[in-house]
Amino acid sequence: MKGYIQVYTGNGKGKTTAAFGQALRAEGAGLKVFIGQFVKGKTYNENVAITKYLKNITIKQFGLGCFIVNTPTEDDISAARKGLEEMRKIIQNGKHDVVIMDEVNIALYYKLFEIDELIELMKSKPDHVELILTGRYAPQEIIDIADLVTEMKEVKHYYQDGIQAREGIEF
Amino acid sequence: MKGYIQVYTGNGKGKTTAAFGQALRAEGAGLKVFIGQFVKGKTYNENVAITKYLKNITIKQFGLGCFIVNTPTEDDISAARKGLEEMRKIIQNGKHDVVIMDEVNIALYYKLFEIDELIELMKSKPDHVELILTGRYAPQEIIDIADLVTEMKEVKHYYQDGIQAREGIEF
Repeated sequence: MKGYIQVYTGNGKGKTTAAFGQALRAEGAGLKVFIGQFVKGKTYNENVAITKYLKNITIKQFGLGCFIVNTPTEDDISAARKGLEEMRKIIQNGKHDVVIMDEVNIALYYKLFEIDELIELMKSKPDHVELILTGRYAPQEIIDIADLVTEMKEVKHYYQDGIQAREGIEF
Repeated sequence: MKGYIQVYTGNGKGKTTAAFGQALRAEGAGLKVFIGQFVKGKTYNENVAITKYLKNITIKQFGLGCFIVNTPTEDDISAARKGLEEMRKIIQNGKHDVVIMDEVNIALYYKLFEIDELIELMKSKPDHVELILTGRYAPQEIIDIADLVTEMKEVKHYYQDGIQAREGIEF
């Protein structure tokens, strides 16, 4: 089966959850999935469910557990670079049918690594690997290479009314 | 915890998978989830994974297993109406923290039931229930009542190049 490159971007809710839903679907078909999460370093409830119940999905984090506010630190950069190296191996060895690089667009946005490094990696993927990139601010160069791009557009969001993130719903 | 109403609509890929990712996250937090699928009546791989591994998520279909092409049949209408009645009980008894009405916007689009019936149901939900509606063509009245609305906008799709749906990826 030929694999493609999917991108979920935009400012609306649903990018990471769509990628995770895709992982769930793949698991149901007996495919092997690897999820690498950039910037994030906190255990979310989706990670708990995967680790506990879904044995064909491996999940790993390459972030520090706190969001980058203005300028990334050296530690942010080194964690993301390490992640990129690890993803390179995972993608290129072709052992996983679906590989998700969650929030990789955010890592690019904060210049944690160069866009050329990511583009080279995308182009080097084995033919059968489905590669899924998420995160707002996907740059045009990434969109150009991708086969499928969905923009999650925020039409309305309760955060606008000052509601706090809730366990099991937002994280 | 207060529950809200979320809508995932638009012509892009990721609406159902975002709702299912949300279900996975909720399962990780120990919440109870019910997924009712309108129009759909075929066992997708996401359904397989849920039934097999995720015990806090119940999934049920209210469709006939084939897509509606032009005009819905009496059977399509009666299946959807039965689904709406069942969802009413599920929502109003409040035993599930997260209730997903997958493709309910499509059911509305094909006039399988009246929009007023759905609006009444949305307004009657217990305060703690998170209600998630998916499907393209969400009408403005539904968007007006919802707390969070994401439009999945197709920027680019490999279907445009005539690629067939693949097991574990599209279904």
